[in-house]
Amino acid sequence: MKTIFADYRSAGFFAYLSSSVKDNAYKNLHFDKEKFDYGDNYNPATGVYTVPYDGVYLILAQVYGFDNVAHHEIRVDGKSVSFTAMYDDQSNNISQSSSTSIILELRAGQEVAVVPSFNKRVGGQGGAVITSFGATLLYPK
Amino acid sequence: MKTIFADYRSAGFFAYLSSSVKDNAYKNLHFDKEKFDYGDNYNPATGVYTVPYDGVYLILAQVYGFDNVAHHEIRVDGKSVSFTAMYDDQSNNISQSSSTSIILELRAGQEVAVVPSFNKRVGGQGGAVITSFGATLLYPK
Amino acid sequence: MKTIFADYRSAGFFAYLSSSVKDNAYKNLHFDKEKFDYGDNYNPATGVYTVPYDGVYLILAQVYGFDNVAHHEIRVDGKSVSFTAMYDDQSNNISQSSSTSIILELRAGQEVAVVPSFNKRVGGQGGAVITSFGATLLYPK
Repeated sequence: MKTIFADYRSAGFFAYLSSSVKDNAYKNLHFDKEKFDYGDNYNPATGVYTVPYDGVYLILAQVYGFDNVAHHEIRVDGKSVSFTAMYDDQSNNISQSSSTSIILELRAGQEVAVVPSFNKRVGGQGGAVITSFGATLLYPK
Repeated sequence: MKTIFADYRSAGFFAYLSSSVKDNAYKNLHFDKEKFDYGDNYNPATGVYTVPYDGVYLILAQVYGFDNVAHHEIRVDGKSVSFTAMYDDQSNNISQSSSTSIILELRAGQEVAVVPSFNKRVGGQGGAVITSFGATLLYPK
Repeated sequence: MKTIFADYRSAGFFAYLSSSVKDNAYKNLHFDKEKFDYGDNYNPATGVYTVPYDGVYLILAQVYGFDNVAHHEIRVDGKSVSFTAMYDDQSNNISQSSSTSIILELRAGQEVAVVPSFNKRVGGQGGAVITSFGATLLYPK
């Protein structure tokens, strides 16, 4: 029993962006602050979550755009596996969030990242989480 | 222990739309590609997920609209149990995603489906997931 | 084994708004109808979910705005921990939903609530869920 919970816990993390970034299109977002990261599988310097166990994971991402776009991808080993759009045709928009919640079957060692597909400002702040990335193991293989 | 994980795993699936569809308002979306479907409870030909066990499930859906609307419902046994809106008043919009993440108490045999409430193009593609439907058992009853 | 599942189940709830409200900016939304609330940890009269166990939780919220805005926060003990934006610059918009899915490490006794940051109408209805709040324990500490 204990072993199983150790496994589950050590696969979970949640990180967020503590200040805004620009010119980040098609590059990993570096979520620099970790709320938790039990197994130390997420690297804030690269934005990469390295899958610790073969299994099925819930992957969550939110991207806050200060202007009229918040499109983002989830990438596994550099390949886009999911795309979520958020676009308002008026560029004087105040803000938009796009949210991804997907379930992925992943293998140990695979690398997961969140990649915005726009160059405008991606929102981050020190207090409340507005742009975030997290994962939790739903069941091991 | 093994039994429990067998149960959990066999209740999970995740499917997506591999090409775009139109004129699908108030009809089940037929997510034709399965990322995984351990218990074979999801039917790509009908878009229906048949609940395998009494319990509490996390239900996830994303619908990508190529134009200015991406409204969608979650239906259980044909009845709408959830509605998520995404609308931009300009029809020259590029794209929008609507995301639903809900927790439902379901009984074995109930049928769950995702139903867009607009006739414009619902996005699908062979590579990255843009319109998707998934479920996982959080806890059996 | 039984103990653990009892714990998991008693930490979960899901509630929704059964009729629309206005002038609710920066106040807890009172999701008045519960789909389930095994441990009776959510209070529909205050909108507060009181965390039953130290652990890591999945927190889900959706807010439906009938006009052009659906911004909302998640608050823990009155402090904003997450902000999700949804805004269309045209106020003649039909509707918008904003969705939050985050993973939080919480301590027993902490109070979680969903707080819209706009005064326009927040959608609720008796049938399908359009504005909702839920939590489930992913793993105890």
